[in-house]
Amino acid sequence: MFLPIFFIFSFLFSSTNAADFCVGDLNGPVGPAGYSCKKTATEDDFSFSGLLRTAGNTSNLVKAAITPAFSTQFPGVNGLGISIARLDLAVGGVIPMHTHPRASELILVMDGTLFAGFISSDNKVYSKSLNEGDIMIFPQGLLHFQINTGKTQSVAFVSFNSADPGVQILDFALFTNDLPTDIIEGTTFLDAAQIKKLKGVLGGTG
Amino acid sequence: MFLPIFFIFSFLFSSTNAADFCVGDLNGPVGPAGYSCKKTATEDDFSFSGLLRTAGNTSNLVKAAITPAFSTQFPGVNGLGISIARLDLAVGGVIPMHTHPRASELILVMDGTLFAGFISSDNKVYSKSLNEGDIMIFPQGLLHFQINTGKTQSVAFVSFNSADPGVQILDFALFTNDLPTDIIEGTTFLDAAQIKKLKGVLGGTG
Amino acid sequence: MFLPIFFIFSFLFSSTNAADFCVGDLNGPVGPAGYSCKKTATEDDFSFSGLLRTAGNTSNLVKAAITPAFSTQFPGVNGLGISIARLDLAVGGVIPMHTHPRASELILVMDGTLFAGFISSDNKVYSKSLNEGDIMIFPQGLLHFQINTGKTQSVAFVSFNSADPGVQILDFALFTNDLPTDIIEGTTFLDAAQIKKLKGVLGGTG
Amino acid sequence: MFLPIFFIFSFLFSSTNAADFCVGDLNGPVGPAGYSCKKTATEDDFSFSGLLRTAGNTSNLVKAAITPAFSTQFPGVNGLGISIARLDLAVGGVIPMHTHPRASELILVMDGTLFAGFISSDNKVYSKSLNEGDIMIFPQGLLHFQINTGKTQSVAFVSFNSADPGVQILDFALFTNDLPTDIIEGTTFLDAAQIKKLKGVLGGTG
Amino acid sequence: MFLPIFFIFSFLFSSTNAADFCVGDLNGPVGPAGYSCKKTATEDDFSFSGLLRTAGNTSNLVKAAITPAFSTQFPGVNGLGISIARLDLAVGGVIPMHTHPRASELILVMDGTLFAGFISSDNKVYSKSLNEGDIMIFPQGLLHFQINTGKTQSVAFVSFNSADPGVQILDFALFTNDLPTDIIEGTTFLDAAQIKKLKGVLGGTG
Amino acid sequence: MFLPIFFIFSFLFSSTNAADFCVGDLNGPVGPAGYSCKKTATEDDFSFSGLLRTAGNTSNLVKAAITPAFSTQFPGVNGLGISIARLDLAVGGVIPMHTHPRASELILVMDGTLFAGFISSDNKVYSKSLNEGDIMIFPQGLLHFQINTGKTQSVAFVSFNSADPGVQILDFALFTNDLPTDIIEGTTFLDAAQIKKLKGVLGGTG
Repeated sequence: MFLPIFFIFSFLFSSTNAADFCVGDLNGPVGPAGYSCKKTATEDDFSFSGLLRTAGNTSNLVKAAITPAFSTQFPGVNGLGISIARLDLAVGGVIPMHTHPRASELILVMDGTLFAGFISSDNKVYSKSLNEGDIMIFPQGLLHFQINTGKTQSVAFVSFNSADPGVQILDFALFTNDLPTDIIEGTTFLDAAQIKKLKGVLGGTG
Repeated sequence: MFLPIFFIFSFLFSSTNAADFCVGDLNGPVGPAGYSCKKTATEDDFSFSGLLRTAGNTSNLVKAAITPAFSTQFPGVNGLGISIARLDLAVGGVIPMHTHPRASELILVMDGTLFAGFISSDNKVYSKSLNEGDIMIFPQGLLHFQINTGKTQSVAFVSFNSADPGVQILDFALFTNDLPTDIIEGTTFLDAAQIKKLKGVLGGTG
Repeated sequence: MFLPIFFIFSFLFSSTNAADFCVGDLNGPVGPAGYSCKKTATEDDFSFSGLLRTAGNTSNLVKAAITPAFSTQFPGVNGLGISIARLDLAVGGVIPMHTHPRASELILVMDGTLFAGFISSDNKVYSKSLNEGDIMIFPQGLLHFQINTGKTQSVAFVSFNSADPGVQILDFALFTNDLPTDIIEGTTFLDAAQIKKLKGVLGGTG
Repeated sequence: MFLPIFFIFSFLFSSTNAADFCVGDLNGPVGPAGYSCKKTATEDDFSFSGLLRTAGNTSNLVKAAITPAFSTQFPGVNGLGISIARLDLAVGGVIPMHTHPRASELILVMDGTLFAGFISSDNKVYSKSLNEGDIMIFPQGLLHFQINTGKTQSVAFVSFNSADPGVQILDFALFTNDLPTDIIEGTTFLDAAQIKKLKGVLGGTG
Repeated sequence: MFLPIFFIFSFLFSSTNAADFCVGDLNGPVGPAGYSCKKTATEDDFSFSGLLRTAGNTSNLVKAAITPAFSTQFPGVNGLGISIARLDLAVGGVIPMHTHPRASELILVMDGTLFAGFISSDNKVYSKSLNEGDIMIFPQGLLHFQINTGKTQSVAFVSFNSADPGVQILDFALFTNDLPTDIIEGTTFLDAAQIKKLKGVLGGTG
Repeated sequence: MFLPIFFIFSFLFSSTNAADFCVGDLNGPVGPAGYSCKKTATEDDFSFSGLLRTAGNTSNLVKAAITPAFSTQFPGVNGLGISIARLDLAVGGVIPMHTHPRASELILVMDGTLFAGFISSDNKVYSKSLNEGDIMIFPQGLLHFQINTGKTQSVAFVSFNSADPGVQILDFALFTNDLPTDIIEGTTFLDAAQIKKLKGVLGGTG
């Protein structure tokens, strides 16, 4: 007697969950909206425990690490317009000046003290010293930075309203590729000596 | 000699930062895209230290608290398509079954252990036990829940890809208003006695 | 003499209709924006006569039927952000409390009398008795319902601003799967006996 | 004892329903996303019984009438991306060739028989004879038409994925304003005599 | 010593450029958001020198030519929501009345004098005589036209906020296919003789 | 006899052109989607002859000028998602390294020779020498530049898929405000002497 309702509704909507989510198939065709969807999804596709649980390795020049859970690392967010990353900054550590070309960012400081800021299109600086539990918003596409100005290791989490926000770190964009020194000099007004010094550090040529 | 460049560029782009951000003017007209923009923004508009720093009060029936930083509480995110909230769950605490009508959610567990899950349009359950540092995605508009199944207080942060995602908590939607008992009975198949009991707890009438 | 214009324009724009439409290829790869496009479309792809012409079967517990023409049933709407469904409600029939995670809904009553309502994020009820020719809007993602309160069969059509709006029927989400009774109890405050009763009706386990 | 939960949740989310809907304030400022929101909404704002209940007046040249429920006529859909209109066509009636600049259209035939079609960017015609209960999709921005080819009055409902889809009826666009005859002649290749004849019928000058 | 930063950052973000761009693979599957992305992109994918450098052939009836660089001709814009086309108009040349179903257009006159205009949904004409360096905006989906009213060849460039805006030229839509004359007559009020004359010129049948 | 059609259609749609366009009212409230709409628009609102007709003043350090027609300068594009700017570069002139936070850019070279390039999120350089009639696409939010490498004055036009794309010029963002030298040093790895030198040129303090 109760079967009819079960049958009718289940039958009618049995195939409509296609767009509830679209767990990325990293081996399938990619389109402007992201990865193709995996044919079948499991519970494990929607959570991610390996990446954000432990501190990133800050034994590097900037004493900092960025650990992303974007659609490439965490295919469960593919097509859903959201992602997250973990920031670790040792004492004195710096997340260098950078932009996210396709998303706004919301930072949440978990441990320590960060001095963070962004620069608007009309060249104003909006900065703040952030402590545990503080949040700050960095509007889409604008240059921003975070510095651990405290006396302890700092941890923060940054959310994005894109599953693939992109990260363009200024120094890497300028100094880790083969963009000729005179082009950099001409377009940034930096001295050639300065450019060559940073290319040496960061692996750039030309 | 150097003034010209400064003058030319500054003049041309002096007014183009209008849309870099749109800090919400809570007293101005509201439109489909959010609050009107404040005429002038300051550094304080982009960070928020009061709300997410301290634990919510979990001395209530569900032993849990939700502390949002949506555009109404944190006008700096207005128009930027992103927001965040803090969840506090005492031992045994529960964020009851709910939806966000206008956003996907990404949860990050900071402390303790949560059992969380969502239900898809075709009535499948995707659930997971989450520990510190684990993340999970809840696709837009689907019923989901979080339960503190650990032995300690739990804290989590939930990000949304909307500055005003909305929160529709199932029990409050059904049992805190004047929706007549027979209507609830007819549309949820719950027994009238059950409905009246929950209306008594949650303040509903009719 | 007139051929040139025909040749020039036709040649230039001969391949630009790709995005006029994207009739869903149900066997091709699926992405976040929907199905892949069929390589060639015919007149038959854009109309649909089988599904909405006849009444759904209301010989079931809720005395109602939902007949969707979403992108899965009607691939012609794929990528176009619109779809429709037919509702049939026998006397006393009910479309149970449900949400559409990805669309707003506009109902048009064709026959009979429906009592319909939705519940907002702040738990207010907006309801109305609708007669033939009346329309009502249900904002995206919010719980809503329709009840045939008249003395005759009722028919309504519901439009959506998504080709795949999704349908999450509350009772089916809670009681037709293996979500454990204690989890449901903890996240909805319903009594275990109530939950078990409805699982029995709707096919749930656990 | 139960008050705390009621207090906590209600307090936290009491102001978050701003964006559940945005009933248009026809007297307030208008922006690119639509009308400003009314400060308080009532149940009556979300339904509309006057417009679509009765047949439009088809005592005119085209023996047809279009009765819209767009955001201007039905402010409840403002900001929600959906609207509807009623078409009435007497025997031989015609909804002339037209486009909707900002929406796709889904037609549902309620009574009678319509011959309907659209023309794609590469000048192909996709047409169909539609009977009661049939639906057809007209992709965004393309020329389309409907003709009552049956022997009885026809009624149809057309849904749009925009609260303000716009309607540009070809003949009215060309022949009801002061666009000079030679300009029309030059841009449409129509003969001047033809243009002047239609201007006479439709009220155009110049 | 400097290697760590290079290694850490490069490793973490090495695969996140997927969505920086999506150069269209014209042979891969197509979805509602456009072509699939080419697996590897080169510098040549982002520029286009063949098409817009030389004047289109205006030796035709309208003494005009449209040369598009949409995603089909210039796959580098696929997924980026922007494209461009070149217009050439000999003396007396005309870009006939047309619409772009999926984009607004911004025209820039490079040489000569154009009289251009668009018609709004409420049948108002907004027109202007444009000279070298003048720009004009044509809102999405509305009928518009350009006429060379000067004494020299005219060149203009038109930008679109879509990688595939579509072009529906009124006369080609009506008179180059097999849409029956009586249907055109009934839906446009044009005389049958006029229709047949234009079909003769433009290649239509039926 | 013909009046009815004129009356019926005109009456029904007389107020639906609200969203055809939304010419910006620079003095009204601003929202996340742009300026409020002017109450009445005229033909002059949709064209712009003053700004792009004449060469910008390149008598400055970079020997270049950017002349925008964004929504602030050309309110007719408000809400329509498109805008344009003119670039003038004297021999050796440079549009310095910059980003547009909210739009992709499509450049069209009118006169002269430009060497242009952009840098992707994974730090690859995509550059090209562009001559008259060549176009190039710069994907949203990525650093890019243009240099006049020819022997004559160069003119180019750049289109954007936003009415307010924003322009963040790297050097102005870093060196024209009061961002402290040690912060710049720490977040860009530039030497303090280099920073102070550029602050001196560009007007920065601190």
